[in-house]
Amino acid sequence: MSVPIPQLADKPQHIFIWGMGLMGASLALRLKEAGHRVSGAVRSSKSQQTLTQMGLTDILMGDTECIQALEHADILVLGLNLNDCYRVLSLIAAHPTLGERLAILDLCSTKAEIMAHVRTYYPHLRFIGTHPMAGKEIQGPQAAERTLYENAAVFITPPEHLHAAIAQDLTRLAADIWSIAGAHTATINAVEHDRMMAAVSHGLHLNACLIALLSASGAGKNIDLSPAAGSYRDMTRIVQSSGKMWAEIIHSNRQNTSAWLRALADAANELATGIDQQTVDIAVLFEKAQAVRTQVMRT
Amino acid sequence: MSVPIPQLADKPQHIFIWGMGLMGASLALRLKEAGHRVSGAVRSSKSQQTLTQMGLTDILMGDTECIQALEHADILVLGLNLNDCYRVLSLIAAHPTLGERLAILDLCSTKAEIMAHVRTYYPHLRFIGTHPMAGKEIQGPQAAERTLYENAAVFITPPEHLHAAIAQDLTRLAADIWSIAGAHTATINAVEHDRMMAAVSHGLHLNACLIALLSASGAGKNIDLSPAAGSYRDMTRIVQSSGKMWAEIIHSNRQNTSAWLRALADAANELATGIDQQTVDIAVLFEKAQAVRTQVMRT
Repeated sequence: MSVPIPQLADKPQHIFIWGMGLMGASLALRLKEAGHRVSGAVRSSKSQQTLTQMGLTDILMGDTECIQALEHADILVLGLNLNDCYRVLSLIAAHPTLGERLAILDLCSTKAEIMAHVRTYYPHLRFIGTHPMAGKEIQGPQAAERTLYENAAVFITPPEHLHAAIAQDLTRLAADIWSIAGAHTATINAVEHDRMMAAVSHGLHLNACLIALLSASGAGKNIDLSPAAGSYRDMTRIVQSSGKMWAEIIHSNRQNTSAWLRALADAANELATGIDQQTVDIAVLFEKAQAVRTQVMRT
Repeated sequence: MSVPIPQLADKPQHIFIWGMGLMGASLALRLKEAGHRVSGAVRSSKSQQTLTQMGLTDILMGDTECIQALEHADILVLGLNLNDCYRVLSLIAAHPTLGERLAILDLCSTKAEIMAHVRTYYPHLRFIGTHPMAGKEIQGPQAAERTLYENAAVFITPPEHLHAAIAQDLTRLAADIWSIAGAHTATINAVEHDRMMAAVSHGLHLNACLIALLSASGAGKNIDLSPAAGSYRDMTRIVQSSGKMWAEIIHSNRQNTSAWLRALADAANELATGIDQQTVDIAVLFEKAQAVRTQVMRT
């Protein structure tokens, strides 16, 4: 028989963060501040040292050690990429009691794949998806900041296959965790989340790469000045993100992302034709774009 | 017989800035600081008042008054859009002596059209093109700042039809004017300039509009949180620019801009296919994009 979902309001909980990079460590700082016991896992002793210097002292390495430590934890936060999430989830599921006791959440940028994976392979796990929309171009615990999630949006994707009361308790727990970090939360269906993300984030990162690659002709010009203005700097900034991380995100959301790229291509071709034939009103295009942007940003 | 091209190093010059919006007024502040006499023209008494409060007191309205004032000026800076530049140039050309005396420069974002226009219609004018790569989403003299051009890139397009010595003197004058404003300058062929600008600025503004329009599905979602992260904010920021201004820029650089859009469409479709067929290495894509960006930005 499984124990109730732990709630932060009831008592200080023991929260284990498996993966203390930028995202995990930033969350850890706030949870510890709020009086919870925070321990966690990293892959290198360098990260361990960095975290110790930040006051996060209970940091382990190695799967065996981590699984043992989890026997004393209430909540598991996966600060890992998708494949590592799957690996850790399989370890939890293989353990005789952990799966019945732990409340588990992840921080991955795509939600449809991991929710389907858990439902298919580990339907008994008390797992809830969360996606904090925060980050930096730099990674690792040394980049962690207690304010990383301040006013950030966090999307929560409740497990639809679990008993409604369990799903509700998990949702409350996830919302409380992110509130402590200073974020705002909303629940959303995982498939809908991923479709939306293609249009406001995932596709944009690829678009930024294409802009940079198309500007290569400006790179070799025989002039000693950069031709790049603020528009170029802003629109290509995100190509500095980790390509390895983005490869995984794009792969996980490949159908929505490639559909978005094709929609962009259609729109770009249509606009090019409108410009050639002088049938497009660019001022109106800007006005429409401004209106949508204001709505999407809810400002 | 025409007088020599005035040079800022020789003596304080009288510089008339026709069009004291954000760009013209920001330049005026620095030229005045440097000891030159600055006067200029605006279209509204509200702008006149704003400029007076900023210490720029010698500001006129009306073509007749401005042309009269130009009889005492050495240098004319056109802080106007293309069509207004053409109008003022025609007034100068119609005047019996102004065309022989004034050194003239513009601040337009495209250079091929205005250089060809001057060469065709006013080949005798001592005109040089300049394009300061600076700006803001907000316009007007009230947005002017003495630091607007600090470390900005300014491209100078010398007139290739004038006597080489005249072109050289104009280039020196233009470079000195922009140095006073804190900018870095480089000369470039006007046609090459516009092709480059399509890829680092003009096309990007349209791309930003397309991104915003494609995100419309995220605007109406039944969630009380904005789905937009920093990537969306950065990549759509420039849609807040003046659509009217951009309509003119795009029109003036329409061939390069529509070619850029078609190249973007091709690249987006190719990438979509690569993602669908899992033949593209996203991490390598990011690496390549990062390398080009670093080169283009010369950082």
